[in-house]
Amino acid sequence: MGVPAERLSLNTATVRKRWNLRQCIEGCARHGLGGISPWRDMLAEMGVDDAAKMIADKGLRVSGLCRGGMFPATDEAGLRAALDDNRRAVDEAVAIGADCLVMVVGGLPPGSKDIGLARQQVRDGLAATLDYARTAQMPIAIEPLHPMYAADRACVNTLGQALDICDELGEGIGVALDVYHVWWDPELSRQIQRAGKARIYAFHVCDWLVPTKDLLLDRGMMGDGVIDIASIRQEVEAVGFNGLVEVEIFSSGDWWRRDPDDVLRIIIERAQTAV
Amino acid sequence: MGVPAERLSLNTATVRKRWNLRQCIEGCARHGLGGISPWRDMLAEMGVDDAAKMIADKGLRVSGLCRGGMFPATDEAGLRAALDDNRRAVDEAVAIGADCLVMVVGGLPPGSKDIGLARQQVRDGLAATLDYARTAQMPIAIEPLHPMYAADRACVNTLGQALDICDELGEGIGVALDVYHVWWDPELSRQIQRAGKARIYAFHVCDWLVPTKDLLLDRGMMGDGVIDIASIRQEVEAVGFNGLVEVEIFSSGDWWRRDPDDVLRIIIERAQTAV
Repeated sequence: MGVPAERLSLNTATVRKRWNLRQCIEGCARHGLGGISPWRDMLAEMGVDDAAKMIADKGLRVSGLCRGGMFPATDEAGLRAALDDNRRAVDEAVAIGADCLVMVVGGLPPGSKDIGLARQQVRDGLAATLDYARTAQMPIAIEPLHPMYAADRACVNTLGQALDICDELGEGIGVALDVYHVWWDPELSRQIQRAGKARIYAFHVCDWLVPTKDLLLDRGMMGDGVIDIASIRQEVEAVGFNGLVEVEIFSSGDWWRRDPDDVLRIIIERAQTAV
Repeated sequence: MGVPAERLSLNTATVRKRWNLRQCIEGCARHGLGGISPWRDMLAEMGVDDAAKMIADKGLRVSGLCRGGMFPATDEAGLRAALDDNRRAVDEAVAIGADCLVMVVGGLPPGSKDIGLARQQVRDGLAATLDYARTAQMPIAIEPLHPMYAADRACVNTLGQALDICDELGEGIGVALDVYHVWWDPELSRQIQRAGKARIYAFHVCDWLVPTKDLLLDRGMMGDGVIDIASIRQEVEAVGFNGLVEVEIFSSGDWWRRDPDDVLRIIIERAQTAV
């Protein structure tokens, strides 16, 4: 039980209200974390080249770039714009040496109730982006999001559904498994077995709080909720995943308000006791 | 397209902040609804016998009794207490002539992170209750709840999972299908086919709002959200379901504050345009 600091990665959303990317990189290095996973807006603000250099200088691995995706659109121009943006995301992921580009695939376009169409657009967008990503040798990781985000963030909502897409599209595409999104799934163990090492590109942790006061911004620190994180990690590692354990906590009422150095200290403690 | 008032049933939770059960029964009759689905606390307050008589006198059908379930517990005494309560729920459902007893099966017991154990307790509790319900000829309807309720309300979270339990336990047990809980499921159409007329005991409607401001109490009126309710109803009816369409809206910020007669009028309108 327990994950040492050098096997942890900080998703920068966890401290984004108090630190910019430069501070995140410094913080990760200062606390002895093994890696970082930046969001693209923070990367753009710092500059991709400066960020890439600083991350390399500090010896940090990049467990993923957040995020590509958001494919569904109401018209051809919207679909094309999404593909253009995803190619740029691939380039940025390559520039910072990311293990993968994480895909939050998008939900229903404005005004639509056709989740079947949105899912088709996602499949097509992933296929097109994968063609480009293969030429850049950048793995694409579909992140199935909790079903409560099906309307507005991602219409890929189970590991099984993500793996169906992977099986259809072939090599170079896998999944980013976040315990927050999948812990409830009665199919979880079976689908982790199905995914195997070959399809699991990233593993994210935080916790599900009871009660959860906000659909997006009330995620918990590992150990404060009801997810048996250690069991899920053991299952993922049993099939061969040996990448970093990425911590991603959206928490407007709690963790975003705290001193990020305290947050990192607590993450490292909890990685020992609750991961 | 469209469901006439006589095919609608009012789940009393929809107007519970303003009407007691007697007022709900009168309201359903006054607006020409075909049925009602009471909650047990409202039934207890009015008295089961008085309610049964008044419902019959008004010619209303009872599309379901809400609710049995809540099986998981931390000790034997808790498990037994749940079984006792579920037998009483069966008796009450029989007394009011309900089409079925709706089961919200329960989530994790306090302090537990073992969703596998909770699911086993649910299976065992359903099996024991079903034995009793069969002697009373009362159908038991598992309501799979949205995965966002897995921790605190129901650890049966997909139609497929509910049908696996039904297949294991045999006759007299089926599902209550609420579009709010299942609309996101990529397996939905396949599982409706699998369920067929034989397993679909109840069909509930409301809508998923974007944004959803509260996990429990921000459900929408049909037509105000993103669920393609008409398509799901058509799928359910295509396999043979011909029961009432039950309207159940938990809405602390909006519908619970309105005059229930207005709410019923709008339900009847929306049943024509959005169901």
